[in-house]
Amino acid sequence: MTTKEMEPHLFLIFGALGDLARRKLLPALFHLSTKGELGDGYFIVGIDVDENLDDKGFRSRARQMLADAGLLLNDKASQWCDQRLHYHCIGQGSRTDYGKLAGKLDALERECGLPGNRVLYLALPSDIVPNAVAGLGEAGLNQSSGWTRLVLEKPFGWDLASAQELNGEVHRYFDESQIYRTDHFLGKETVQNLLVFRFANTFFEHLWNRDHIESIQITVAESLGIEKRAAYYERAGALRDMVQNHLTQLLALVAMEAPSAFEAGAIRNEKIKVLHRIAPINPADVVLGQYVGGKIDGQGMVGYREEPGVSPNSSTETFAALKIDIPNRRWKGVPFYLRTGKCMALRCTQIVVTFHCAPASIFHPFEETCGVRPNVLVITLQPDEGFDLYFQVKNPGQPFTMTTQPLHFRYAGTFGALPDAYKTIILDVILGDQTLFVCDNEVETAWRLYDGLLKGNIPVHPYPAGSWGPAEMNRLFDGWMNRGA
Amino acid sequence: MTTKEMEPHLFLIFGALGDLARRKLLPALFHLSTKGELGDGYFIVGIDVDENLDDKGFRSRARQMLADAGLLLNDKASQWCDQRLHYHCIGQGSRTDYGKLAGKLDALERECGLPGNRVLYLALPSDIVPNAVAGLGEAGLNQSSGWTRLVLEKPFGWDLASAQELNGEVHRYFDESQIYRTDHFLGKETVQNLLVFRFANTFFEHLWNRDHIESIQITVAESLGIEKRAAYYERAGALRDMVQNHLTQLLALVAMEAPSAFEAGAIRNEKIKVLHRIAPINPADVVLGQYVGGKIDGQGMVGYREEPGVSPNSSTETFAALKIDIPNRRWKGVPFYLRTGKCMALRCTQIVVTFHCAPASIFHPFEETCGVRPNVLVITLQPDEGFDLYFQVKNPGQPFTMTTQPLHFRYAGTFGALPDAYKTIILDVILGDQTLFVCDNEVETAWRLYDGLLKGNIPVHPYPAGSWGPAEMNRLFDGWMNRGA
Repeated sequence: MTTKEMEPHLFLIFGALGDLARRKLLPALFHLSTKGELGDGYFIVGIDVDENLDDKGFRSRARQMLADAGLLLNDKASQWCDQRLHYHCIGQGSRTDYGKLAGKLDALERECGLPGNRVLYLALPSDIVPNAVAGLGEAGLNQSSGWTRLVLEKPFGWDLASAQELNGEVHRYFDESQIYRTDHFLGKETVQNLLVFRFANTFFEHLWNRDHIESIQITVAESLGIEKRAAYYERAGALRDMVQNHLTQLLALVAMEAPSAFEAGAIRNEKIKVLHRIAPINPADVVLGQYVGGKIDGQGMVGYREEPGVSPNSSTETFAALKIDIPNRRWKGVPFYLRTGKCMALRCTQIVVTFHCAPASIFHPFEETCGVRPNVLVITLQPDEGFDLYFQVKNPGQPFTMTTQPLHFRYAGTFGALPDAYKTIILDVILGDQTLFVCDNEVETAWRLYDGLLKGNIPVHPYPAGSWGPAEMNRLFDGWMNRGA
Repeated sequence: MTTKEMEPHLFLIFGALGDLARRKLLPALFHLSTKGELGDGYFIVGIDVDENLDDKGFRSRARQMLADAGLLLNDKASQWCDQRLHYHCIGQGSRTDYGKLAGKLDALERECGLPGNRVLYLALPSDIVPNAVAGLGEAGLNQSSGWTRLVLEKPFGWDLASAQELNGEVHRYFDESQIYRTDHFLGKETVQNLLVFRFANTFFEHLWNRDHIESIQITVAESLGIEKRAAYYERAGALRDMVQNHLTQLLALVAMEAPSAFEAGAIRNEKIKVLHRIAPINPADVVLGQYVGGKIDGQGMVGYREEPGVSPNSSTETFAALKIDIPNRRWKGVPFYLRTGKCMALRCTQIVVTFHCAPASIFHPFEETCGVRPNVLVITLQPDEGFDLYFQVKNPGQPFTMTTQPLHFRYAGTFGALPDAYKTIILDVILGDQTLFVCDNEVETAWRLYDGLLKGNIPVHPYPAGSWGPAEMNRLFDGWMNRGA
């Protein structure tokens, strides 16, 4: 969110042959390069364990990755791979291996005339992250003659204790100002726009409190199952996989006070402040679920326990719904409902703000029949990002009745396709803007909320794939609206 | 706005061969009949001065009127004319003539088994209305064995004194509860919907005051000139023709407090209350204009003084813009801008509500460049009726800037074509619902505001046809937005 120039740098991808690099990072970097958004003074170093690969072999692999990502493979793309990409095998990740890497980087920077700015993007499985961080630190790669920035992907720990431990390990070598914990949800334009939406529009800002708002629902529904990620998901579950990070980040953005400035530090402060105000969630305010066989779009889906790699007795939750109270001046008494699940009726990420209903008595003597309903604001993050403000209009003609209709806005209709979240993330790292990244304190504050729920003593109710979750939800969320408005 | 049944009645059109009957009333009545909305127990009596016409001749003329109005002329329409229409010649409008009419109506009601409910619709030039009212009253046609309702068309007087005189004359024979003064602007669904919009939507209702609103503009712009109405328009001018009635009605609906009930009496009370709070308009807050030759859509337009029938020295205003203050708790200090004109750049009727701007300081350090602008609500009455709420969204990508975009709603997109205003008017008269009609007190209160402006001592500035009015407007209305948002 700045207008700074792109500084020359090395962009290091650890795990360059992995899934994230292939699907997201390399395509995003190539895209950005074609628009000139990376400047001219950058080189990308892919780092992985394949010792049979050299620069040439990696460039050839990269071309395939771009093709797999659906990018038109032309001379320009080939040229870009040849000019910008390098490869380095990190071997076993020993101290010597990292020392060799350090030497290679120094040489490359000398050769290319770079000032020593470095992005260290760890696109690695979470269990080897601590080793990689230590390796980098011990080899002195936590610093350079320019800036050095470390990018971490979630999960940031598995509970409060492990998150604190991980933060501690990273802090041994890196200062918090160097650390960029990504949440690709926060890279989305719509989420950034949430801040503009809330604070640049007096219209909405004035109504954004308990005096006017009845409830707020935040839903991240996925229609897919766990796909091939059983090993990860069996350990994680919905609370760790979605609630602690994405949903809590959205919650903080929706509920926080206005920051004193539009910059990372001020915004983080407000997010942490509001999360701190929330008591650890009471298990009685939580409904967990696990999908059983069902149908989505007419297609049969197997249950979670039948997925390959999942234990037939698994009690891992694939659905979580929570009711949260924020007992501060702005929100006391307004329920925040968080919900996420796999194999839901449809894929959507929505924030639904329901306002208080107008008193029907204004419409005396029609109060019984006119049909006053509350105003509802639906912020859709995906698919088809945009805003809908459901309001009451009179039905034409006689008798006097009302209907609820949306005032409608869609990003794509105005701006065309929005940039991929990873493009935003990459640019912000290079620009040194931490606004959309999660800091240590936020991670730990969020874990604190859910830590008591991770002990496995909350019942997990079955729900059919393709539904909106277990029937027990109705107990907790009276009047929950299934699809926003 | 009720669900009452249609009672059997006679619908009398005085001036049945005139322009309004031909263009609006008969087509609307036929339309309503095809939908069964008039019930089954009604007959229509056309009354005019052509003594050579009988029922048969009038029915033949009526068929032609329906055809002229673009209605498909089929057997059903012919049948309807034969079954429902009668004609009566009122002669010179003498006492004897009205006596004869009374006898005819009694006979018709006996013959058709009607209970004596009567609509007396005066579709007459304003100068013969007093005679017609007196004639009806003297012949005892101000009452019947059922209800009798008198429908009057504007103008309701030419200034405060003449309006009071006219009200006095009508009240000699008719009780205010029998009188339906039409303003076809109020028959429009969108205007009715204004009440729902304001009071059924907590969202808007909470912001509807000086704490949140910067200014309100009400524009009724016509792209046409005076057409063939020079004789009327030379006497009238924009203040009488549009401001005193349509614009003032819109002003009252936008500014009034919530009525205690959704019915005529309560709504009228609030409209009158808010109009009473306004001081007679200061001539210094008024800009008048008269169009000179220009172009609209590339087509040359003659100036007002060149129009056939207009004096070459005419000082009649074809444009008026006014600034109005309502010094009550809700509106003190919020300027209401009223504007109307002929031969304007385009035809539109809009209410533009501009909210206070968010403090740019929230976006520090981008306050200079991010481009915070105010939220604006545009209520369009014509053409393409609907609502647009202009709000701030972030432009995708870097650098951090905003743009203003509309949340969008159109009636036609949701409900299809809206009913013609005259259908609403006719139904409400038959149902006895005075909500959308203007009472004596409102008429006089509105005249009081503008009476001091009608003395001809305000300069009338030329403006080119196809423009947005004289340049002097800028003096009065700094920052006026030409086309809504």
